[in-house]
Amino acid sequence: MPLSESIVSIIGMGLMGGSLGAALVKGGVCKEVRGIVRKESQVPAVVAAKAAHVAGTDRKRLLQGADLVVLATPVCSIEEEILSIQPFLGSGTVLTDLGSTKASIVNAMDKLEGDIIAVGGHPMCGKETSGIGSATSILFEGAIWALIPTRNTKPHGLELLLELISAVGARPVVMDVERHDSAVACVSTLPYLLSVALMAVVSEAGQNNEFVRRLASSGLRDTSRLAASNIRMMMEIVNSNRAHVERILSMSLKRLEDLGLLLTDEDTKGLCDFLKNAQEERLRLFPEGVPEAIHEPRAPRGRG
Amino acid sequence: MPLSESIVSIIGMGLMGGSLGAALVKGGVCKEVRGIVRKESQVPAVVAAKAAHVAGTDRKRLLQGADLVVLATPVCSIEEEILSIQPFLGSGTVLTDLGSTKASIVNAMDKLEGDIIAVGGHPMCGKETSGIGSATSILFEGAIWALIPTRNTKPHGLELLLELISAVGARPVVMDVERHDSAVACVSTLPYLLSVALMAVVSEAGQNNEFVRRLASSGLRDTSRLAASNIRMMMEIVNSNRAHVERILSMSLKRLEDLGLLLTDEDTKGLCDFLKNAQEERLRLFPEGVPEAIHEPRAPRGRG
Repeated sequence: MPLSESIVSIIGMGLMGGSLGAALVKGGVCKEVRGIVRKESQVPAVVAAKAAHVAGTDRKRLLQGADLVVLATPVCSIEEEILSIQPFLGSGTVLTDLGSTKASIVNAMDKLEGDIIAVGGHPMCGKETSGIGSATSILFEGAIWALIPTRNTKPHGLELLLELISAVGARPVVMDVERHDSAVACVSTLPYLLSVALMAVVSEAGQNNEFVRRLASSGLRDTSRLAASNIRMMMEIVNSNRAHVERILSMSLKRLEDLGLLLTDEDTKGLCDFLKNAQEERLRLFPEGVPEAIHEPRAPRGRG
Repeated sequence: MPLSESIVSIIGMGLMGGSLGAALVKGGVCKEVRGIVRKESQVPAVVAAKAAHVAGTDRKRLLQGADLVVLATPVCSIEEEILSIQPFLGSGTVLTDLGSTKASIVNAMDKLEGDIIAVGGHPMCGKETSGIGSATSILFEGAIWALIPTRNTKPHGLELLLELISAVGARPVVMDVERHDSAVACVSTLPYLLSVALMAVVSEAGQNNEFVRRLASSGLRDTSRLAASNIRMMMEIVNSNRAHVERILSMSLKRLEDLGLLLTDEDTKGLCDFLKNAQEERLRLFPEGVPEAIHEPRAPRGRG
């Protein structure tokens, strides 16, 4: 069944689910968008955000007849959600999720019985703010959207998702769960943890030197942006992907120790090569160049 | 003498010197702006950028009668420049520089003889690109500009610089050399080194997993922006501030090890507190909130 004739039910109408609903409603790309929330009191915000055609808390009713069900709840709850909604899913329903780590979710999807078609999903976008109030129909534009096939994936389920991803302006990349979780630890969780460590150092150094905070400028601002991320979400991402995160964190420690040794040894050639390799990797990853960052932020009002 | 009646000679017309000249010329805030370059072939670009009223290589002529001399050459050359231009500076000339680390520069300024008024300077702004072609009159708008008094600083020299800084839209902060260099290692060099280590990990992890580069998104992009910085400039900054940089790098290693232990010990409470403290520090430093980063970069064309 094409997307245009499909009923899409989204469970969890926060930043991600709300933005997906808003993009689908705005684009008019499917037959109906249903938003499922935990509490009745959340319904008006979903309606106000135009994030669904109908919204409510009654899962049974809102999942009935759905052609595509999207789990957009926090990553640690998705496994449980898969089990709990299973009885409400009709034969042939396509099920996906928006969780940032995939091992346990794909494992739960593998075990689904009946004729449910399940595909793990992970759109690589977000904001530092959360909730339906932050939702926006343009959230997915230009974003990579990882798709992870499970034992219960069938071609027409994948096709429906490719159509949906393309309809909201994102770019699908199909990959296996192991390489997904490993890559996410590297390109998403590690930058966060480095950003957190940076803020810890600034906080410590700032206690003895008021100028640490007064000299904070655009370099620090950009490198530390991720430290402002939602803590609960990051805790879940770290906890659900611990082995990969530990391994990647060790790699970064090793590299920083290497840098420290090059400094201590006054190994100018070695240091220069190290910096050059990093610069080349950066230019390879983001060849369009860096966004110009010539302005300082408005007066960082550090308490110094 | 007020800035409006002053002749300002800038030595070194790259990104920083060229931008300063362009801002002064555009604002019409001083009597004359002179740009001093190394090679005659660099003069047309300075003229084209409207970065000086007169430009050339003849130091003696272009320094004669100057009320304010600004050293805008690479940080490692400034100490030598101070010695070499001394014979050309008239009594009462105000001398400053734009170098990113200050210990050896301020030390050289302390030793100046005659009636030269010397003040170390460091505008906290820049770009990842360098040269007069990147110069812009708005470079300093909103930037913190550190001023470091020397033994040869006198009140009216400081006043002239405060006037200049304010004329180009920057905000002066006067501090001692030790705390300047320590703060710079923390808020400027450490973010760079973390960004470099991040790219080294991505490069290594990307060799075995093509999806590392394919999943690169806005978080990685912002956290790694500084890795694209000019290598020669960063080498000079690191080398001229080695002790502080080593100390700050050790602090960051310690914090990352702490994070690793919290992960290994599955210390959820400890990890959560660590992340919260970092988040609070970030919000204290940049209370205006984070720039929204909901879009992915245009297709990272990683060679994967």
